[in-house]
Amino acid sequence: MNVQALLFDTYGTLVDWRGSILDELAAFGRARSLAHDWVGFLSEWKACYRPGMEAVNRGERPWITIDALYRERLVELLAARGFDVPPAEVDHLNRVWWRLRPWPDSVAGLARLKRRHVISPLSNASFAGMVHLGKSAGLPWDCVITAENARRYKPHPDVYRTALALLGLGAEHVMLVAAHNYDLAAAQALGLRTAFVPRPLEYGPGQTTDLVAEGKWDVIVDSVEELAATLGG
Amino acid sequence: MNVQALLFDTYGTLVDWRGSILDELAAFGRARSLAHDWVGFLSEWKACYRPGMEAVNRGERPWITIDALYRERLVELLAARGFDVPPAEVDHLNRVWWRLRPWPDSVAGLARLKRRHVISPLSNASFAGMVHLGKSAGLPWDCVITAENARRYKPHPDVYRTALALLGLGAEHVMLVAAHNYDLAAAQALGLRTAFVPRPLEYGPGQTTDLVAEGKWDVIVDSVEELAATLGG
Repeated sequence: MNVQALLFDTYGTLVDWRGSILDELAAFGRARSLAHDWVGFLSEWKACYRPGMEAVNRGERPWITIDALYRERLVELLAARGFDVPPAEVDHLNRVWWRLRPWPDSVAGLARLKRRHVISPLSNASFAGMVHLGKSAGLPWDCVITAENARRYKPHPDVYRTALALLGLGAEHVMLVAAHNYDLAAAQALGLRTAFVPRPLEYGPGQTTDLVAEGKWDVIVDSVEELAATLGG
Repeated sequence: MNVQALLFDTYGTLVDWRGSILDELAAFGRARSLAHDWVGFLSEWKACYRPGMEAVNRGERPWITIDALYRERLVELLAARGFDVPPAEVDHLNRVWWRLRPWPDSVAGLARLKRRHVISPLSNASFAGMVHLGKSAGLPWDCVITAENARRYKPHPDVYRTALALLGLGAEHVMLVAAHNYDLAAAQALGLRTAFVPRPLEYGPGQTTDLVAEGKWDVIVDSVEELAATLGG
Protein backbone atom coordinates (compact mmCIF):
# COMPACT_ATOMS: atom_id res chain seq x y z
CA MET A 1 0.00 0.00 0.00
CA ASN A 2 1.16 3.49 -0.83
CA VAL A 3 -1.32 5.55 1.14
CA GLN A 4 -0.68 9.28 0.88
CA ALA A 5 -3.81 10.69 2.46
CA LEU A 6 -6.13 9.47 5.19
CA LEU A 7 -9.78 10.48 5.37
CA PHE A 8 -11.52 10.06 8.71
CA ASP A 9 -15.12 9.60 9.52
CA THR A 10 -15.42 11.71 12.63
CA TYR A 11 -18.69 11.32 14.61
CA GLY A 12 -18.25 8.03 16.40
CA THR A 13 -14.91 7.21 14.81
CA LEU A 14 -12.87 10.02 16.41
CA VAL A 15 -15.25 11.66 18.87
CA ASP A 16 -17.69 10.31 21.45
CA TRP A 17 -20.82 12.16 20.39
CA ARG A 18 -23.14 10.20 22.67
CA GLY A 19 -21.26 10.65 25.93
CA SER A 20 -20.49 14.30 25.19
CA ILE A 21 -24.08 15.19 24.30
CA LEU A 22 -25.61 13.30 27.23
CA ASP A 23 -23.38 15.35 29.55
CA GLU A 24 -24.51 18.61 27.93
CA LEU A 25 -28.18 17.60 27.96
CA ALA A 26 -27.95 16.71 31.65
CA ALA A 27 -26.35 20.10 32.38
CA PHE A 28 -29.04 21.78 30.26
CA GLY A 29 -31.70 20.03 32.36
CA ARG A 30 -30.06 20.85 35.69
CA ALA A 31 -29.80 24.55 34.78
CA ARG A 32 -33.58 24.57 34.16
CA SER A 33 -34.56 22.08 36.90
CA LEU A 34 -35.94 19.73 34.23
CA ALA A 35 -35.89 16.06 35.10
CA HIS A 36 -35.98 14.13 31.85
CA ASP A 37 -34.99 10.94 30.04
CA TRP A 38 -32.05 12.47 28.15
CA VAL A 39 -30.95 9.11 26.73
CA GLY A 40 -34.32 8.82 25.03
CA PHE A 41 -34.20 12.46 23.99
CA LEU A 42 -30.82 11.99 22.31
CA SER A 43 -31.97 8.81 20.64
CA GLU A 44 -34.92 10.64 19.10
CA TRP A 45 -32.71 13.56 18.15
CA LYS A 46 -30.11 11.41 16.41
CA ALA A 47 -32.87 9.50 14.62
CA CYS A 48 -33.44 12.46 12.24
CA TYR A 49 -29.95 12.03 10.82
CA ARG A 50 -30.43 9.16 8.36
CA PRO A 51 -33.85 10.13 6.88
CA GLY A 52 -32.78 13.77 6.45
CA MET A 53 -29.62 12.83 4.60
CA GLU A 54 -31.36 10.24 2.47
CA ALA A 55 -33.92 12.84 1.33
CA VAL A 56 -31.02 15.04 0.16
CA ASN A 57 -29.25 12.16 -1.55
CA ARG A 58 -32.43 11.15 -3.39
CA GLY A 59 -32.86 14.74 -4.56
CA GLU A 60 -36.17 15.12 -2.71
CA ARG A 61 -34.79 17.95 -0.65
CA PRO A 62 -32.31 20.65 -1.68
CA TRP A 63 -28.94 20.66 0.04
CA ILE A 64 -29.21 21.36 3.77
CA THR A 65 -26.46 21.01 6.36
CA ILE A 66 -26.65 18.47 9.11
CA ASP A 67 -26.62 21.40 11.56
CA ALA A 68 -29.87 22.66 10.06
CA LEU A 69 -31.38 19.15 10.08
CA TYR A 70 -30.48 18.70 13.73
CA ARG A 71 -31.84 22.14 14.62
CA GLU A 72 -35.22 21.41 12.98
CA ARG A 73 -35.50 18.22 14.97
CA LEU A 74 -34.29 19.80 18.21
CA VAL A 75 -36.99 22.50 18.00
CA GLU A 76 -39.63 19.82 17.46
CA LEU A 77 -38.42 17.71 20.39
CA LEU A 78 -38.24 20.66 22.78
CA ALA A 79 -41.71 21.86 21.77
CA ALA A 80 -43.23 18.38 22.10
CA ARG A 81 -42.05 18.30 25.71
CA GLY A 82 -43.25 21.81 26.47
CA PHE A 83 -39.70 23.08 27.07
CA ASP A 84 -39.67 26.79 26.25
CA VAL A 85 -36.12 27.61 25.12
CA PRO A 86 -35.10 30.95 23.51
CA PRO A 87 -33.67 30.64 19.96
CA ALA A 88 -30.14 31.67 21.01
CA GLU A 89 -30.10 28.85 23.57
CA VAL A 90 -31.43 26.42 20.99
CA ASP A 91 -28.55 27.50 18.72
CA HIS A 92 -26.08 26.93 21.51
CA LEU A 93 -27.50 23.53 22.40
CA ASN A 94 -27.60 22.48 18.74
CA ARG A 95 -23.94 23.34 18.40
CA VAL A 96 -23.04 20.70 20.94
CA TRP A 97 -22.17 18.75 17.78
CA TRP A 98 -19.31 21.23 17.33
CA ARG A 99 -17.75 20.54 20.75
CA LEU A 100 -17.62 16.79 21.24
CA ARG A 101 -14.88 14.97 23.15
CA PRO A 102 -12.36 12.92 21.20
CA TRP A 103 -11.82 9.28 22.10
CA PRO A 104 -8.63 8.95 24.18
CA ASP A 105 -6.48 7.72 21.26
CA SER A 106 -7.72 10.11 18.54
CA VAL A 107 -5.55 13.20 18.94
CA ALA A 108 -2.29 11.36 19.58
CA GLY A 109 -2.96 8.97 16.70
CA LEU A 110 -3.76 11.79 14.26
CA ALA A 111 -0.63 13.68 15.28
CA ARG A 112 1.47 10.61 14.46
CA LEU A 113 -0.25 10.01 11.14
CA LYS A 114 0.09 13.66 10.16
CA ARG A 115 3.87 13.36 10.06
CA ARG A 116 3.83 11.22 6.92
CA HIS A 117 0.31 11.61 5.53
CA VAL A 118 -2.22 14.24 4.66
CA ILE A 119 -5.03 13.87 7.21
CA SER A 120 -8.54 15.20 6.69
CA PRO A 121 -12.00 14.46 7.99
CA LEU A 122 -14.54 13.13 5.51
CA SER A 123 -17.63 13.66 7.57
CA ASN A 124 -21.31 14.27 7.02
CA ALA A 125 -20.89 17.32 9.26
CA SER A 126 -21.18 20.85 7.91
CA PHE A 127 -17.87 22.35 6.87
CA ALA A 128 -18.08 24.97 9.65
CA GLY A 129 -19.09 22.34 12.18
CA MET A 130 -16.08 20.20 11.34
CA VAL A 131 -13.73 23.21 11.49
CA HIS A 132 -15.00 24.13 14.95
CA LEU A 133 -14.97 20.54 16.18
CA GLY A 134 -11.38 20.26 15.01
CA LYS A 135 -10.45 23.33 17.05
CA SER A 136 -12.37 22.36 20.17
CA ALA A 137 -11.23 18.73 20.20
CA GLY A 138 -7.67 19.48 19.04
CA LEU A 139 -7.86 17.34 15.91
CA PRO A 140 -4.76 18.48 13.98
CA TRP A 141 -6.21 18.40 10.45
CA ASP A 142 -4.22 19.38 7.38
CA CYS A 143 -7.50 20.38 5.74
CA VAL A 144 -11.22 19.83 6.15
CA ILE A 145 -13.45 18.05 3.63
CA THR A 146 -17.07 17.25 4.40
CA ALA A 147 -20.30 16.27 2.71
CA GLU A 148 -20.91 20.00 2.26
CA ASN A 149 -18.12 20.14 -0.33
CA ALA A 150 -20.08 17.65 -2.43
CA ARG A 151 -23.58 18.75 -1.36
CA ARG A 152 -24.38 15.08 -0.91
CA TYR A 153 -24.09 12.83 2.12
CA LYS A 154 -22.07 9.68 2.62
CA PRO A 155 -22.46 6.98 1.42
CA HIS A 156 -23.27 8.81 -1.84
CA PRO A 157 -20.24 8.24 -4.12
CA ASP A 158 -19.98 11.97 -4.93
CA VAL A 159 -18.71 12.62 -1.41
CA TYR A 160 -15.72 10.29 -1.75
CA ARG A 161 -15.10 11.41 -5.35
CA THR A 162 -15.09 15.05 -4.30
CA ALA A 163 -12.46 14.28 -1.68
CA LEU A 164 -10.23 12.47 -4.20
CA ALA A 165 -10.56 15.35 -6.67
CA LEU A 166 -9.69 17.98 -4.07
CA LEU A 167 -6.71 15.98 -2.85
CA GLY A 168 -5.60 15.36 -6.43
CA LEU A 169 -5.03 11.68 -5.69
CA GLY A 170 -6.08 8.38 -7.17
CA ALA A 171 -8.34 6.24 -4.99
CA GLU A 172 -5.56 3.70 -4.37
CA HIS A 173 -3.53 6.36 -2.55
CA VAL A 174 -6.31 7.33 -0.16
CA MET A 175 -7.59 5.40 2.87
CA LEU A 176 -10.92 5.92 4.59
CA VAL A 177 -10.83 5.31 8.34
CA ALA A 178 -14.20 4.65 9.93
CA ALA A 179 -16.02 2.85 12.71
CA HIS A 180 -18.92 2.09 10.35
CA ASN A 181 -19.00 -0.75 7.86
CA TYR A 182 -21.43 1.02 5.46
CA ASP A 183 -19.01 3.92 5.04
CA LEU A 184 -16.05 1.62 4.35
CA ALA A 185 -18.09 -0.39 1.84
CA ALA A 186 -18.94 2.75 -0.14
CA ALA A 187 -15.30 3.85 -0.16
CA GLN A 188 -13.99 0.43 -1.12
CA ALA A 189 -16.44 0.25 -4.04
CA LEU A 190 -14.67 3.30 -5.46
CA GLY A 191 -11.21 1.81 -4.97
CA LEU A 192 -10.17 3.55 -1.75
CA ARG A 193 -8.19 1.73 0.91
CA THR A 194 -10.09 1.03 4.11
CA ALA A 195 -9.32 0.92 7.82
CA PHE A 196 -11.92 -0.22 10.35
CA VAL A 197 -11.63 1.10 13.90
CA PRO A 198 -14.57 -0.40 15.79
CA ARG A 199 -16.00 1.80 18.55
CA PRO A 200 -18.14 -0.65 20.52
CA LEU A 201 -19.36 2.03 22.95
CA GLU A 202 -20.37 4.64 20.36
CA TYR A 203 -24.05 3.88 20.95
CA GLY A 204 -23.62 3.05 24.62
CA PRO A 205 -23.28 -0.25 26.47
CA GLY A 206 -26.01 -2.05 24.51
CA GLN A 207 -24.55 -1.43 21.04
CA THR A 208 -25.29 -4.20 18.55
CA THR A 209 -24.01 -2.72 15.25
CA ASP A 210 -20.52 -2.29 13.79
CA LEU A 211 -18.95 -4.49 16.44
CA VAL A 212 -17.11 -6.54 13.83
CA ALA A 213 -15.79 -6.11 10.30
CA GLU A 214 -18.45 -6.93 7.71
CA GLY A 215 -16.13 -6.62 4.72
CA LYS A 216 -12.56 -7.29 3.65
CA TRP A 217 -11.06 -4.07 4.97
CA ASP A 218 -7.35 -3.46 4.42
CA VAL A 219 -6.65 -2.70 8.06
CA ILE A 220 -8.57 -3.51 11.24
CA VAL A 221 -7.28 -1.86 14.41
CA ASP A 222 -8.58 -0.93 17.85
CA SER A 223 -7.36 2.68 17.90
CA VAL A 224 -5.98 5.49 15.76
CA GLU A 225 -2.64 5.06 17.48
CA GLU A 226 -2.60 1.41 16.41
CA LEU A 227 -3.39 2.58 12.88
CA ALA A 228 -0.35 4.89 12.99
CA ALA A 229 1.84 2.01 14.13
CA THR A 230 0.44 -0.23 11.38
CA LEU A 231 1.15 2.36 8.68
CA GLY A 232 4.66 2.91 10.01
CA GLY A 233 4.07 6.40 11.42
CA MET B 1 -15.02 44.69 14.66
CA ASN B 2 -16.10 41.18 15.56
CA VAL B 3 -13.89 39.15 13.28
CA GLN B 4 -14.36 35.40 13.76
CA ALA B 5 -12.44 34.05 10.78
CA LEU B 6 -9.41 35.25 8.85
CA LEU B 7 -8.82 34.33 5.22
CA PHE B 8 -5.29 34.69 3.91
CA ASP B 9 -4.05 35.22 0.45
CA THR B 10 -0.98 33.02 0.46
CA TYR B 11 1.40 33.44 -2.52
CA GLY B 12 3.22 36.68 -1.77
CA THR B 13 1.25 37.43 1.39
CA LEU B 14 2.51 34.52 3.52
CA VAL B 15 5.19 32.86 1.39
CA ASP B 16 8.08 34.19 -0.67
CA TRP B 17 7.36 32.47 -3.97
CA ARG B 18 9.97 34.42 -5.93
CA GLY B 19 12.96 33.80 -3.67
CA SER B 20 12.00 30.17 -3.13
CA ILE B 21 11.54 29.40 -6.81
CA LEU B 22 14.70 31.22 -7.91
CA ASP B 23 16.66 29.02 -5.49
CA GLU B 24 15.09 25.87 -6.92
CA LEU B 25 15.60 26.98 -10.53
CA ALA B 26 19.25 27.73 -9.81
CA ALA B 27 19.67 24.28 -8.24
CA PHE B 28 17.85 22.74 -11.22
CA GLY B 29 20.31 24.51 -13.55
CA ARG B 30 23.38 23.51 -11.54
CA ALA B 31 22.32 19.86 -11.51
CA ARG B 32 22.16 19.95 -15.33
CA SER B 33 25.08 22.37 -15.87
CA LEU B 34 22.68 24.85 -17.49
CA ALA B 35 23.66 28.49 -17.18
CA HIS B 36 20.52 30.53 -17.65
CA ASP B 37 18.69 33.73 -16.78
CA TRP B 38 16.40 32.20 -14.18
CA VAL B 39 14.99 35.57 -13.13
CA GLY B 40 13.72 36.04 -16.68
CA PHE B 41 12.54 32.43 -16.82
CA LEU B 42 10.49 32.85 -13.63
CA SER B 43 9.08 36.12 -14.87
CA GLU B 44 7.86 34.44 -18.05
CA TRP B 45 6.55 31.48 -16.07
CA LYS B 46 4.58 33.62 -13.61
CA ALA B 47 3.18 35.66 -16.51
CA CYS B 48 0.81 32.83 -17.48
CA TYR B 49 -1.01 33.21 -14.16
CA ARG B 50 -3.29 36.15 -14.83
CA PRO B 51 -4.39 35.36 -18.44
CA GLY B 52 -5.05 31.70 -17.57
CA MET B 53 -7.24 32.60 -14.62
CA GLU B 54 -9.06 35.31 -16.51
CA ALA B 55 -9.97 32.86 -19.27
CA VAL B 56 -11.54 30.59 -16.63
CA ASN B 57 -13.39 33.49 -14.98
CA ARG B 58 -14.78 34.65 -18.31
CA GLY B 59 -16.01 31.12 -19.02
CA GLU B 60 -13.78 30.76 -22.08
CA ARG B 61 -11.99 27.83 -20.56
CA PRO B 62 -13.40 25.10 -18.32
CA TRP B 63 -12.09 24.93 -14.77
CA ILE B 64 -8.39 24.10 -14.61
CA THR B 65 -6.15 24.25 -11.56
CA ILE B 66 -3.32 26.73 -11.32
CA ASP B 67 -0.97 23.72 -11.10
CA ALA B 68 -2.11 22.61 -14.55
CA LEU B 69 -1.80 26.15 -15.94
CA TYR B 70 1.74 26.43 -14.57
CA ARG B 71 2.66 23.01 -15.93
CA GLU B 72 1.48 23.89 -19.44
CA ARG B 73 3.59 27.02 -19.38
CA LEU B 74 6.60 25.29 -17.85
CA VAL B 75 6.63 22.69 -20.62
CA GLU B 76 6.52 25.46 -23.24
CA LEU B 77 9.33 27.42 -21.60
CA LEU B 78 11.59 24.39 -21.23
CA ALA B 79 10.97 23.33 -24.81
CA ALA B 80 11.60 26.85 -26.17
CA ARG B 81 15.05 26.76 -24.55
CA GLY B 82 15.82 23.26 -25.77
CA PHE B 83 15.95 21.86 -22.21
CA ASP B 84 15.01 18.19 -22.41
CA VAL B 85 13.43 17.29 -19.06
CA PRO B 86 11.61 13.99 -18.36
CA PRO B 87 7.93 14.37 -17.36
CA ALA B 88 8.50 13.21 -13.77
CA GLU B 89 11.12 15.93 -13.33
CA VAL B 90 8.81 18.50 -14.88
CA ASP B 91 6.18 17.42 -12.34
CA HIS B 92 8.65 17.82 -9.52
CA LEU B 93 9.81 21.23 -10.71
CA ASN B 94 6.22 22.40 -11.23
CA ARG B 95 5.41 21.44 -7.66
CA VAL B 96 7.91 23.98 -6.39
CA TRP B 97 4.72 26.01 -5.84
CA TRP B 98 3.86 23.47 -3.13
CA ARG B 99 7.08 24.00 -1.15
CA LEU B 100 7.67 27.73 -0.83
CA ARG B 101 9.29 29.40 2.16
CA PRO B 102 7.11 31.45 4.51
CA TRP B 103 8.05 35.05 5.27
CA PRO B 104 9.73 35.19 8.71
CA ASP B 105 6.61 36.46 10.52
CA SER B 106 4.00 34.21 8.87
CA VAL B 107 4.05 31.04 10.97
CA ALA B 108 4.32 32.76 14.37
CA GLY B 109 1.62 35.26 13.41
CA LEU B 110 -0.77 32.55 12.23
CA ALA B 111 -0.21 30.53 15.40
CA ARG B 112 -1.19 33.56 17.50
CA LEU B 113 -4.26 34.34 15.39
CA LYS B 114 -5.37 30.70 15.50
CA ARG B 115 -5.94 30.91 19.25
CA ARG B 116 -8.97 33.15 18.88
CA HIS B 117 -9.93 32.91 15.21
CA VAL B 118 -10.56 30.37 12.51
CA ILE B 119 -7.69 30.74 10.04
CA SER B 120 -7.81 29.54 6.46
CA PRO B 121 -6.08 30.33 3.20
CA LEU B 122 -8.18 31.82 0.43
CA SER B 123 -5.78 31.32 -2.41
CA ASN B 124 -5.89 30.84 -6.15
CA ALA B 125 -3.83 27.69 -5.56
CA SER B 126 -5.21 24.23 -6.13
CA PHE B 127 -6.71 22.65 -3.02
CA ALA B 128 -4.00 19.95 -2.98
CA GLY B 129 -1.29 22.53 -3.59
CA MET B 130 -2.43 24.61 -0.64
CA VAL B 131 -2.65 21.53 1.61
CA HIS B 132 0.90 20.52 0.74
CA LEU B 133 2.22 24.07 1.04
CA GLY B 134 0.63 24.29 4.48
CA LYS B 135 2.45 21.12 5.55
CA SER B 136 5.82 22.04 4.06
CA ALA B 137 5.80 25.64 5.31
CA GLY B 138 4.21 24.80 8.67
CA LEU B 139 1.19 27.07 8.19
CA PRO B 140 -1.15 25.90 10.99
CA TRP B 141 -4.46 26.14 9.12
CA ASP B 142 -7.78 25.22 10.70
CA CYS B 143 -9.02 24.36 7.21
CA VAL B 144 -8.15 25.01 3.58
CA ILE B 145 -10.32 26.93 1.12
CA THR B 146 -9.10 27.82 -2.35
CA ALA B 147 -10.36 28.95 -5.73
CA GLU B 148 -10.84 25.25 -6.52
CA ASN B 149 -13.75 25.12 -4.06
CA ALA B 150 -15.53 27.73 -6.19
CA ARG B 151 -14.08 26.71 -9.57
CA ARG B 152 -13.44 30.40 -10.17
CA TYR B 153 -10.39 32.52 -9.45
CA LYS B 154 -10.04 35.59 -7.28
CA PRO B 155 -11.09 38.34 -7.73
CA HIS B 156 -14.30 36.64 -8.97
CA PRO B 157 -16.89 37.20 -6.21
CA ASP B 158 -17.85 33.51 -6.18
CA VAL B 159 -14.53 32.69 -4.52
CA TYR B 160 -15.16 34.95 -1.51
CA ARG B 161 -18.83 33.93 -1.37
CA THR B 162 -17.90 30.24 -1.35
CA ALA B 163 -15.61 30.84 1.60
CA LEU B 164 -18.32 32.67 3.55
CA ALA B 165 -20.82 29.89 2.85
CA LEU B 166 -18.41 27.15 3.92
CA LEU B 167 -17.51 29.01 7.10
CA GLY B 168 -21.19 29.72 7.78
CA LEU B 169 -20.41 33.36 8.57
CA GLY B 170 -21.65 36.73 7.44
CA ALA B 171 -19.14 38.87 5.55
CA GLU B 172 -18.79 41.30 8.45
CA HIS B 173 -17.33 38.52 10.61
CA VAL B 174 -14.63 37.55 8.10
CA MET B 175 -11.42 39.42 7.26
CA LEU B 176 -9.32 38.94 4.16
CA VAL B 177 -5.60 39.42 4.71
CA ALA B 178 -3.58 40.14 1.58
CA ALA B 179 -0.55 41.90 0.17
CA HIS B 180 -2.52 42.83 -2.96
CA ASN B 181 -4.90 45.74 -3.25
CA TYR B 182 -7.03 44.13 -6.02
CA ASP B 183 -7.83 41.18 -3.75
CA LEU B 184 -8.81 43.41 -0.83
CA ALA B 185 -10.98 45.57 -3.08
CA ALA B 186 -12.95 42.53 -4.29
CA ALA B 187 -13.43 41.31 -0.70
CA GLN B 188 -14.45 44.73 0.60
CA ALA B 189 -17.03 45.08 -2.18
CA LEU B 190 -18.75 42.01 -0.71
CA GLY B 191 -18.65 43.38 2.85
CA LEU B 192 -15.64 41.51 4.21
CA ARG B 193 -13.19 43.18 6.54
CA THR B 194 -9.76 43.82 5.08
CA ALA B 195 -6.16 43.78 6.28
CA PHE B 196 -3.30 44.93 4.05
CA VAL B 197 0.14 43.47 4.73
CA PRO B 198 2.43 44.98 2.10
CA ARG B 199 5.24 42.74 0.94
CA PRO B 200 7.55 45.18 -0.86
CA LEU B 201 10.02 42.46 -1.87
CA GLU B 202 7.49 39.98 -3.28
CA TYR B 203 8.57 40.82 -6.83
CA GLY B 204 12.17 41.51 -5.94
CA PRO B 205 14.07 44.72 -5.26
CA GLY B 206 12.53 46.68 -8.14
CA GLN B 207 8.88 46.13 -7.12
CA THR B 208 6.58 49.01 -8.09
CA THR B 209 3.12 47.61 -7.25
CA ASP B 210 1.22 47.12 -3.99
CA LEU B 211 3.72 49.17 -2.02
CA VAL B 212 0.97 51.26 -0.44
CA ALA B 213 -2.70 50.93 0.42
CA GLU B 214 -4.92 51.91 -2.50
CA GLY B 215 -8.18 51.64 -0.58
CA LYS B 216 -9.64 52.22 2.85
CA TRP B 217 -8.62 48.94 4.40
CA ASP B 218 -9.65 48.22 7.98
CA VAL B 219 -6.14 47.32 9.09
CA ILE B 220 -2.73 48.07 7.60
CA VAL B 221 0.22 46.28 9.21
CA ASP B 222 3.74 45.27 8.31
CA SER B 223 3.54 41.64 9.39
CA VAL B 224 1.17 38.85 10.41
CA GLU B 225 2.48 39.13 13.95
CA GLU B 226 1.52 42.82 13.99
CA LEU B 227 -1.92 41.79 12.73
CA ALA B 228 -2.25 39.38 15.67
CA ALA B 229 -1.30 42.15 18.08
CA THR B 230 -3.79 44.53 16.43
CA LEU B 231 -6.64 42.02 16.70
CA GLY B 232 -5.78 41.33 20.34
CA GLY B 233 -4.45 37.82 19.81
